[in-house]
Amino acid sequence: METMVNNISVEKATTSKINEVDFDNLSFGSVYTDHMLVCDYVNGAWQSPKVVPYQPISLDPSAKIFHYGQSIFEGMKAYKDESGKTWLFRPLENHKRLNKSAQRLAIPELPESHFMDGLTTLLQVEQDWIPQNPGSSLYIRPFMLASGKGFHASPADEYKFIIACAPSGAYFSGKVKVLIEEKYSRAANGGVGYAKAGGNYAGQFYPTQLAIEKGYHQVIWTDDNTHEYIEEAGAMNIFVRINDTLITGPTSDRILDGITRKSILQIAENQGIATEVRKISVSEVVAAAKNGSLKEMFGAGTAAVVSPIAAFGYKDTDYELPELENSYASQLKKYITDVQYNRSEDKFGWRYPV
Amino acid sequence: METMVNNISVEKATTSKINEVDFDNLSFGSVYTDHMLVCDYVNGAWQSPKVVPYQPISLDPSAKIFHYGQSIFEGMKAYKDESGKTWLFRPLENHKRLNKSAQRLAIPELPESHFMDGLTTLLQVEQDWIPQNPGSSLYIRPFMLASGKGFHASPADEYKFIIACAPSGAYFSGKVKVLIEEKYSRAANGGVGYAKAGGNYAGQFYPTQLAIEKGYHQVIWTDDNTHEYIEEAGAMNIFVRINDTLITGPTSDRILDGITRKSILQIAENQGIATEVRKISVSEVVAAAKNGSLKEMFGAGTAAVVSPIAAFGYKDTDYELPELENSYASQLKKYITDVQYNRSEDKFGWRYPV
Repeated sequence: METMVNNISVEKATTSKINEVDFDNLSFGSVYTDHMLVCDYVNGAWQSPKVVPYQPISLDPSAKIFHYGQSIFEGMKAYKDESGKTWLFRPLENHKRLNKSAQRLAIPELPESHFMDGLTTLLQVEQDWIPQNPGSSLYIRPFMLASGKGFHASPADEYKFIIACAPSGAYFSGKVKVLIEEKYSRAANGGVGYAKAGGNYAGQFYPTQLAIEKGYHQVIWTDDNTHEYIEEAGAMNIFVRINDTLITGPTSDRILDGITRKSILQIAENQGIATEVRKISVSEVVAAAKNGSLKEMFGAGTAAVVSPIAAFGYKDTDYELPELENSYASQLKKYITDVQYNRSEDKFGWRYPV
Repeated sequence: METMVNNISVEKATTSKINEVDFDNLSFGSVYTDHMLVCDYVNGAWQSPKVVPYQPISLDPSAKIFHYGQSIFEGMKAYKDESGKTWLFRPLENHKRLNKSAQRLAIPELPESHFMDGLTTLLQVEQDWIPQNPGSSLYIRPFMLASGKGFHASPADEYKFIIACAPSGAYFSGKVKVLIEEKYSRAANGGVGYAKAGGNYAGQFYPTQLAIEKGYHQVIWTDDNTHEYIEEAGAMNIFVRINDTLITGPTSDRILDGITRKSILQIAENQGIATEVRKISVSEVVAAAKNGSLKEMFGAGTAAVVSPIAAFGYKDTDYELPELENSYASQLKKYITDVQYNRSEDKFGWRYPV
């Protein structure tokens, strides 16, 4: 049965899976809610988004997503505060970045109203799915794929924009050990590294598997030309604290313009933490680890929030990071999650009510 | 109704679309045959391939192909000779390269027998679809995609291998005008450029659109660091003839190891044409164009075969290539297509009967 909510057509699922879900033991992104948002690009225009029961996507075998990798995504979360009210964190930034990715992948840009009205309507329908347990949230995955057909290597003429949701716990459990990569690369100058393009992720899996076999959790990518400069960790931007200065690499056409990354920079500056946005060489980090001035390293991203790094490996040597009381990572994580869960003042206007 | 052919299960389509197809006016890769091959990777193993009616692929919205770009493909053709017999061209090379791509994209490798038995059975079922018209062939698209579910950025646990076929005419019609790229890039050192990964293609569409708006058909990619060296054309490897020497860049982790490319090198050597496999700088090509020693440029690939380049653009200047009688491009194209269509001796053992 179809109804209209906020001018968006909503077809409700006949049964709900919610009672099968153990909200006290959520993994990351492996259980999906009862509905999804679907919006089609056909005849040269994005059509009206619709909320429909969560269901398989059926595509012709010649759909260009299967052959030419025309796909992009975003990662977001919905947070429930103690009163049961739902909040998003800087969602307009996700919409802007989605369109930046779309442009680079030759996918038609999506109007802001399709994104925001579709998203908020979906979240209203799925409000019972948004966890209230500490550390849990509803992970939101907006994505676009080329559904148009043809074996000619050229942009598709039809696309799908979909939002699916998964109540989720932590992305990483425990402290993370990373390997600074010396051989493989994530992104080329003039390439698509700054876009949240599907192909950027698949290319990381094999080198990451090799790192996992050596006992690491994640790879820290370096520039493809010299492997001398730290770029990002694939699912996270990277911050380094040397003495009391917090340093992160500049965004570029190789590095994702992370929303958590830029929020952290703003919080740090506001809190009186010295920050530098500049290239970070591997040799600088190794030297700092050796002389004790390297206090912290952490990853920052929507899924992982702020993820402290316990040790890094480079050229067959492991370097342990100290365990600090009141680390920048813990301060910044607290600040950002307090805003997200509506536990503190929203000085920067980042919270968005659903 | 299911039967067994060569130990492969075959479920025949109840009706055929073949009478709707105009075999005298085929475009490239836009009409599909009645059947396809499907093979699933589940529970840690590739299952038996099956020929089934051509039909949509149904995937969960969280299937990793949609999010993380885990997809690879191959391009092949089946040729019918004058007696109606069907031939493939070096198909084992496609299988080997498929597995090289699979390894780099963290997709499980496919056994040779699954590939070859599945392919030949499909082609036997589809033999009426293989065009006999001059210049036409059955384009064959083997591809693999991550069907396993989850929003965690890690390799999928389930995959699909599919072969679909499309009776096709020429990939390019007429002569090709290319733009040597100065800003965007196709591949990173240590990246996935040598793999036939979906993501490598999507990243080319936007820069190619910009080139098309300027009046070119294709981009010639240069190295991402200096843009000083010619790499490949995305859907083709590039050959340059300076005086009487045929030059192509070395394969690397950025450049596809093209089967047409290496066949051309072997034919040229056998025909007494001087060849060089070495880095080609843009400045060398521009200088040769200016002093008249640049005789030919052409692309080489399965889809385009040998595709002469009429002109190239670089730094806002266009350079026309001369029109030669008995060009290397025309000699090599004739040699290779004569082998493919069983019109000449198969000196190198490249023809493969179906």
